[in-house]
Amino acid sequence: MAVDRLRSIIERVERLEEERKALAGDIKDIFSEAKSAGFDVKVIKQIISLRKKEPAEVEEQETLLDLYRRALGM
Amino acid sequence: MAVDRLRSIIERVERLEEERKALAGDIKDIFSEAKSAGFDVKVIKQIISLRKKEPAEVEEQETLLDLYRRALGM
Amino acid sequence: MAVDRLRSIIERVERLEEERKALAGDIKDIFSEAKSAGFDVKVIKQIISLRKKEPAEVEEQETLLDLYRRALGM
Amino acid sequence: MAVDRLRSIIERVERLEEERKALAGDIKDIFSEAKSAGFDVKVIKQIISLRKKEPAEVEEQETLLDLYRRALGM
Repeated sequence: MAVDRLRSIIERVERLEEERKALAGDIKDIFSEAKSAGFDVKVIKQIISLRKKEPAEVEEQETLLDLYRRALGM
Repeated sequence: MAVDRLRSIIERVERLEEERKALAGDIKDIFSEAKSAGFDVKVIKQIISLRKKEPAEVEEQETLLDLYRRALGM
Repeated sequence: MAVDRLRSIIERVERLEEERKALAGDIKDIFSEAKSAGFDVKVIKQIISLRKKEPAEVEEQETLLDLYRRALGM
Repeated sequence: MAVDRLRSIIERVERLEEERKALAGDIKDIFSEAKSAGFDVKVIKQIISLRKKEPAEVEEQETLLDLYRRALGM
């Protein structure tokens, strides 16, 4: 078996997973900073999620959401 | 080792996991039905998520979301 | 809009989600019972996962795992 | 509202999320490479997971797994 190749694969994945963990920590820190600055973190996450979508898609979904809510008396 | 006890624990968990899988299938079927009936499934999921929250919390989050969006020119 | 249909869809999903949550609680209770009886819960979960696979697949994976571990000096 | 602060928070999170997505892609590429080289990707993932644990913990879990399997006639 190509053991050096196997070892290299494993070590590269482990390094990238470490970086991914560090990034997750950095993101968490930014949200802590946002909270300390008085922002609502849940709402910031909604903003980030909205910015990923096409504006036309966002508008269509919001129109439907309003329609369904009114129909249900919410 | 209390092997009968162990076997009973495992079999009960497996049975409940089967039921859970069946429920997940049933939920998927209802969403398929909703889609066939012309409803937007993503929006229905948003409605279900809103209904789980306190109305006051929903209103506060929506007010903040509007505020942030306007501030960001979205 | 067929509001009765929409309401029925939402309420059926909510009911099934409640059942799913109850099942998750039941499974958690069985694992608590297992722990109190002196069993290792992580190992029980491994057993349950093994039982879902074909015996031939399990054996092949275990043979490879041994091979890789020995190659890596683990 | 401190809109510049809000915008900075959002953009920093988005940048880090992009990096995280890129890392996930890099990890996927390494596993594709591993597969092409004839390795079993599931088994490599098990190896990576074992390397994260203390050797003593791994050994204890494996001893128990053997014990439970034999008790259950697996």
